Amino acid sequence: MKVTNANGSQRIALGIEYDGTAFHGWQSQPHGQTVQDVVEQALSQVAGQAIRVHCAGRTDSGVHALNQVVHFDCPVARPPHAWVRGGNAHLPPTVCVRWAQPVADDFHARFDARSRHYCYLLHNHPVRPALLHGRVGWHHRPLSLEHMQTAARMLLGEHDFSAFRAAECQAKSAVKIMHQADIRQHEELIIFEFRANAFLQHMVRNLVGALVAIGNGRAPVTSIAELLASRDRCQAAPTFSAAGLYLVGVDYAAHWNIPPAARIMPALFTI
Amino acid sequence: MKVTNANGSQRIALGIEYDGTAFHGWQSQPHGQTVQDVVEQALSQVAGQAIRVHCAGRTDSGVHALNQVVHFDCPVARPPHAWVRGGNAHLPPTVCVRWAQPVADDFHARFDARSRHYCYLLHNHPVRPALLHGRVGWHHRPLSLEHMQTAARMLLGEHDFSAFRAAECQAKSAVKIMHQADIRQHEELIIFEFRANAFLQHMVRNLVGALVAIGNGRAPVTSIAELLASRDRCQAAPTFSAAGLYLVGVDYAAHWNIPPAARIMPALFTI
Repeated sequence: MKVTNANGSQRIALGIEYDGTAFHGWQSQPHGQTVQDVVEQALSQVAGQAIRVHCAGRTDSGVHALNQVVHFDCPVARPPHAWVRGGNAHLPPTVCVRWAQPVADDFHARFDARSRHYCYLLHNHPVRPALLHGRVGWHHRPLSLEHMQTAARMLLGEHDFSAFRAAECQAKSAVKIMHQADIRQHEELIIFEFRANAFLQHMVRNLVGALVAIGNGRAPVTSIAELLASRDRCQAAPTFSAAGLYLVGVDYAAHWNIPPAARIMPALFTI
Repeated sequence: MKVTNANGSQRIALGIEYDGTAFHGWQSQPHGQTVQDVVEQALSQVAGQAIRVHCAGRTDSGVHALNQVVHFDCPVARPPHAWVRGGNAHLPPTVCVRWAQPVADDFHARFDARSRHYCYLLHNHPVRPALLHGRVGWHHRPLSLEHMQTAARMLLGEHDFSAFRAAECQAKSAVKIMHQADIRQHEELIIFEFRANAFLQHMVRNLVGALVAIGNGRAPVTSIAELLASRDRCQAAPTFSAAGLYLVGVDYAAHWNIPPAARIMPALFTI
């Protein structure tokens, strides 16, 4: 593995965890408090010079990440633990570097990602959440898990997901391949898991909206297939809250040697 | 069950859930943003007159609750769901009323409590938590679960817990009966569960400090028994962070008909 560029800089990959509540999303903005801004500021402190990072998946305002993968080039050599400990010393308490690793200089966190893994946590209870405020979406009416599971299976495979993209989505193509679309329940929490080669803007939150409409009986199970076929965003259910959405991890070809996605996430847990 | 006082008022019990991060504890203070303040303000809005509540366990600043039990008297009749829905409409998003129920007019949330159930969540990983910041304590060194479990068993039964009380603790007696002292691990989270007839101020956080000192090898397993016997706070390990502490529930005699403690709590969860 070649880990030093012709110009002597080293390419480093990092795994980043964050609570997105107080941030205006991942991507740097002129007026915004963004996750990219605080990560770049912290790494620049460690490097002693300006660092610019590239991420695998740009999360929206209020969306969380368990293992956002980023890469950057740094002309100064630092041992991997310096990026972890030093980075964490300069990051706000709701953002941390989980791991750091030198990578080949042609690795790209975004373009080499083979799939992304998102989770949506939905608090399904007549009373709104308090302790998990900002960490879960909420739906107060009973939901049929079975109906939602049947509908979710219709999402598997290659589809044009235009009906589930945001108006401002900039992706060139709305055709994506859905590898996993699982739904399970743990006490009063419903956990939606999606894995696809890539996602459109608001796609998971729009899919959750359409599935909840099926779960509470407002739409038939087959409506999800009809929405897909329509390619019309105007027909789909409302976008669900960002608070319940987590970028769980990003998958790469084994030869890049990127640590696997996080196996943990905050959720409700029977004690 | 007598549910109306001689003066025509009705006694109501409520279960309250809260994220204690932004509050200066439960108990009302002249200058403080406290949970009691916001609960009384919300219930007073529903009642149309000033309401004063009494709680089962006064939690400190930053401590959370899944099912804090309170009672109050209200001269105006309201159906139970009005206290839940109306209360939640007037409460901040990090506090909610889980349930409401009329109770006998001699029920007292604090004096009739037979035991309290607390949990402490400890993030045990070299890297500090980000997503669970404010919801867990943190210890970066490896811990022996077995040593901590052995030590915790020495806490069971009736003891003088003076070595684990805060200097400012106002309890008349430091003798308490510990019914449960369990420790288990779930991925990188260590879950301490304590159930006792009552707890002294900072008692759980001080017990966790002493158990962690045993777990990381700084103190022998028997040190917990020696600390108990010493009755000397100055010998014990430091008080652990409030962020990991949860009042899970309060137990009452069955005839009061109080809903059982919450069975859920936020934690790390394998997906």
